[in-house]
Amino acid sequence: MSIITLTTDFGYKDPFIGEMKGVILSINPAINIVDITHGITPFNIIEADFIISSSRNYFPPGTIHVVVVDPGVGTCRRPVIIETDDQLFVGPDNGIFTTIIKESGQKKCIHITNEEYMLSKDSSTFQGRDIFAPVAAWLSRGKAASDIGIEINDCIQTDIPAITLVPDGLQGEVVYIDQFGNAITNITTKDLRSFHKYSVLLKGHLLHPVENYARLSPGAIGCLINSSGHLEIFSFQANASQLFGIGKREKIKISGS
Amino acid sequence: MSIITLTTDFGYKDPFIGEMKGVILSINPAINIVDITHGITPFNIIEADFIISSSRNYFPPGTIHVVVVDPGVGTCRRPVIIETDDQLFVGPDNGIFTTIIKESGQKKCIHITNEEYMLSKDSSTFQGRDIFAPVAAWLSRGKAASDIGIEINDCIQTDIPAITLVPDGLQGEVVYIDQFGNAITNITTKDLRSFHKYSVLLKGHLLHPVENYARLSPGAIGCLINSSGHLEIFSFQANASQLFGIGKREKIKISGS
Amino acid sequence: MSIITLTTDFGYKDPFIGEMKGVILSINPAINIVDITHGITPFNIIEADFIISSSRNYFPPGTIHVVVVDPGVGTCRRPVIIETDDQLFVGPDNGIFTTIIKESGQKKCIHITNEEYMLSKDSSTFQGRDIFAPVAAWLSRGKAASDIGIEINDCIQTDIPAITLVPDGLQGEVVYIDQFGNAITNITTKDLRSFHKYSVLLKGHLLHPVENYARLSPGAIGCLINSSGHLEIFSFQANASQLFGIGKREKIKISGS
Repeated sequence: MSIITLTTDFGYKDPFIGEMKGVILSINPAINIVDITHGITPFNIIEADFIISSSRNYFPPGTIHVVVVDPGVGTCRRPVIIETDDQLFVGPDNGIFTTIIKESGQKKCIHITNEEYMLSKDSSTFQGRDIFAPVAAWLSRGKAASDIGIEINDCIQTDIPAITLVPDGLQGEVVYIDQFGNAITNITTKDLRSFHKYSVLLKGHLLHPVENYARLSPGAIGCLINSSGHLEIFSFQANASQLFGIGKREKIKISGS
Repeated sequence: MSIITLTTDFGYKDPFIGEMKGVILSINPAINIVDITHGITPFNIIEADFIISSSRNYFPPGTIHVVVVDPGVGTCRRPVIIETDDQLFVGPDNGIFTTIIKESGQKKCIHITNEEYMLSKDSSTFQGRDIFAPVAAWLSRGKAASDIGIEINDCIQTDIPAITLVPDGLQGEVVYIDQFGNAITNITTKDLRSFHKYSVLLKGHLLHPVENYARLSPGAIGCLINSSGHLEIFSFQANASQLFGIGKREKIKISGS
Repeated sequence: MSIITLTTDFGYKDPFIGEMKGVILSINPAINIVDITHGITPFNIIEADFIISSSRNYFPPGTIHVVVVDPGVGTCRRPVIIETDDQLFVGPDNGIFTTIIKESGQKKCIHITNEEYMLSKDSSTFQGRDIFAPVAAWLSRGKAASDIGIEINDCIQTDIPAITLVPDGLQGEVVYIDQFGNAITNITTKDLRSFHKYSVLLKGHLLHPVENYARLSPGAIGCLINSSGHLEIFSFQANASQLFGIGKREKIKISGS
């Protein structure tokens, strides 16, 4: 039994995800389907890239990830399959797989062209159901990606928020706010390796990393390395984003000290 | 492995859906359960009818659809099973299956009466868990509908928003607003077959159908035939419903031109 | 095929639940995973206790329930397994299993200590994914709880809102507001057994129990015994909590009459 995951900006109100699952199960009734999230901020490619490149690490080899955040649905942007060493990714070629492509070793990009593996009722507005879902289902049945399309080598790479060197340290930014109001940055343990000790400057707050949330008193602002290995700004048992006005793209500075 | 789908107005906050799944899996551990949506507007029978009659097309023959939008739970309205050519529907007899009954060919309606297939803890306020879930589970194990109740021929039909002929065309209305703010109407490709070309009048906007969202500039209002074959009013990468004040029941006029 | 259920306060926006499912399926691909709810009010231990102790009754013997509402994640509070007669519970030892421990007969509490059954990437901020998910998965594969930790007999019991005797009856309180605005109290059929007839006093409203919602006219306030056997305040086809300003902890008085 293999796994297909779904990550979209479709929300939870509409029947769209249910229809995608119906299409998948019509092709492969023995598949496990797992929702990663359908709460991506609508049309936000950078958030989709961040979520899938973090979450995919918790799924076994052979997992097929369908990601549909697709502001250009119906335009000439290509539907693609990305093959990494041990997992497959299916979705629009609009930059959502930038980090996956950058970080995975051996890889192949396939432009999905074979209509045999698309839904015959193919519409131009819902390729999640009509192209990505059936393609993922066929892949889960062992169909080779090379039968479904043609190899390309110019997959779209988008501008992922970069970490920059500044005079006395690093500058990064907040890339995701979770439902508890924690502000997750693009700075990871790897980036922090060169520091013996470090402090964090954000909106005038000078923060020293702690080991877990409970090290602060409720409502105070702090930072830690979170469960996905990213530097995270939090407020113990409170909503840091709301309390301290921290939004996505907020700049953060790391200094050795 | 067959499929039971769930469509309700229960939302995502409460444990009600989880309890229904527990009841289903207690009876048939090998079933696939798929949520179509639990975000139906509370008590909105017309929306439930619209969603289930569209979404059911993406599920394979043999699928059993449980639909619970039930303002009259606990009253004398009957619990029913609807048999169509290739799928089964389980829910309250309050009009939610109007389009299913109208559009499916051969059909049978069964009034669920046999308490043997209901939960022994049957309550009068949660028939989704106590009647519809276990009945669907027994049907998925091959139990005949005729063993579970008695055939009736007076299933409730509700007033589904109708398309009317007007002097120079058709009049329909908005029946659903999706999470992106797209306004979906009750006018389908079938209704539009008689027009060589057509234009759409809505709230003073004269619209000409395009092929996909990206044909407009962001924020402009337009219309297209959407992925379920319905005429849809949208705004590219924006929320048409909010931007242009389009709600459910908004009238829309089609003219040949 | 056995079942693992998930009950958390993680909401539906983030990828956390998806990651927990990835971890579980990596260990046991043949498991059924059911979401009870992820909509528990953040950090609300009493609500978690109420939900899991009600909902668990609709799952078959052998079900493993993972509950993660964990204001003290990363502190010294212990991760535990609770064994009851027929089901297992996995989560933080912070009071969320108070009613489960009180109401189940034979029972055992195990402090999870064996790191062999935790995720190697164990973080101090997301034990749901790194400890509770893998432990539940190993339990579902037949691993004995005694292999995963050591028995303890001092599991944390929290102060669950109590029902108190008052001069002419009982006093209880609202413990949960559902998505329809129904206010569910901690008073159950068992507590009401001693009354031949009873009336309910809440915020100056004197209410007499009815059999189901539809016995009242729309918008009127009433009460009934709900589907989980609790006394519930409702307003037919309306939101009682909003209409009548009823929140959690609202006191309610029962008098014989």
